[in-house]
Amino acid sequence: MTLVMYERVGHDGRRPSPFSWRIRYALAHKGVPVEFRLVRFADVETIRQLSGQHMVPILLDGDRVIHDSWTIACYLEDRFPELPPLFGGEAGRGLARLANHWSDTALGTAVRRLIAAGFTQCLAPEDREYYRRSREASFGCTLEEYCADRPRWLDHFNAVVAPLERTLGEQPFFAGASPSYADYVLFSVFQYMRLGCPDEFVAEGTALRRWRDGLALAFDGLGNRYPLYPAN
Amino acid sequence: MTLVMYERVGHDGRRPSPFSWRIRYALAHKGVPVEFRLVRFADVETIRQLSGQHMVPILLDGDRVIHDSWTIACYLEDRFPELPPLFGGEAGRGLARLANHWSDTALGTAVRRLIAAGFTQCLAPEDREYYRRSREASFGCTLEEYCADRPRWLDHFNAVVAPLERTLGEQPFFAGASPSYADYVLFSVFQYMRLGCPDEFVAEGTALRRWRDGLALAFDGLGNRYPLYPAN
Repeated sequence: MTLVMYERVGHDGRRPSPFSWRIRYALAHKGVPVEFRLVRFADVETIRQLSGQHMVPILLDGDRVIHDSWTIACYLEDRFPELPPLFGGEAGRGLARLANHWSDTALGTAVRRLIAAGFTQCLAPEDREYYRRSREASFGCTLEEYCADRPRWLDHFNAVVAPLERTLGEQPFFAGASPSYADYVLFSVFQYMRLGCPDEFVAEGTALRRWRDGLALAFDGLGNRYPLYPAN
Repeated sequence: MTLVMYERVGHDGRRPSPFSWRIRYALAHKGVPVEFRLVRFADVETIRQLSGQHMVPILLDGDRVIHDSWTIACYLEDRFPELPPLFGGEAGRGLARLANHWSDTALGTAVRRLIAAGFTQCLAPEDREYYRRSREASFGCTLEEYCADRPRWLDHFNAVVAPLERTLGEQPFFAGASPSYADYVLFSVFQYMRLGCPDEFVAEGTALRRWRDGLALAFDGLGNRYPLYPAN
């Protein structure tokens, strides 16, 4: 029985969601076939009817409906133990959970401060108002106010990613010689940044850039399969 | 042949150094006997003569002199593969390196902003001037200026540790069901904070507090073996 994954889609087929990217890479790593079903960014109702909550991606495995990207990754690992391991054992899984929480708080916030104002442009025009309204309610200010003072948020971003750069200066992937789910989680946030804004924040010649661009090319160029941020 | 570890010692036998703590826990985890030799905080010359650099701890294994705590941890793991694993495999080691760099940059800085001004009191009186001079040169301001605006640095600390708290709310240790070297690295910074200042910054009832106090009790109460911050 083929797995089904519901994924959010942006303007003209774009895929900016970090949570979908980490599961796409997990599925590719396992080599599990999957059928994708697309939902618009603002189409919260479809997801809620399927899973009782509004977060995407969700995974369908026969009658089972699994949501929350971390839960999906663990489900894939335990459901397909004979396929290439996503975590590399108990300690690898434990520390991947830490990387997952750190990505969604420290790193995710640092990235949003740089890209949120322009992010609407990679969403379908009819979804932009939903994004603006829901994020402005969450941030407590307009998207433009949230991203004002770019020099400050650029310094902040560079400080947040400093331990990532150091680590990748000493080993090819966060999990060591080959990537694990922690790499895909971190990559998914850099992918969201790369696809969700017109500017490049990861300098050429850095270890992070080598790692990010290398992972974009993995699995037959999985990370480069969808359109970039729309040109003006 | 017994291993020898050189470790910095503070006022009246105190042990505030985070780098020593992580290696003490690594040695206890492996169950390797070790002879400790103490050096005063300002006694950079002894360490330099032994190892050609000034960082402590250093480990002596017969004729071999190993320095840098990460290198020492990897050395112990590879030297004693039959003893309990410190990393739990390749992915566990890779992600422990990330936790190590993050601890020494993001977490270590957040902690120093709260404790550096009072830290001199847990050093021997004759070492305090060395600490002040070297740190003030590195910070570019006095210790008191570095730690001014405590409400700001307390907010900063709480933001930095948020993903740690979330992770430990879902599993007993960072490495999952049992501690690995990544736990000892992170613990060592909280131990430095607990022993290096008179205030408690990790609230009772949190997952972080349960984890920190639990690790202090591990290995026959290893973390509680030395005096706390001096009472006024």
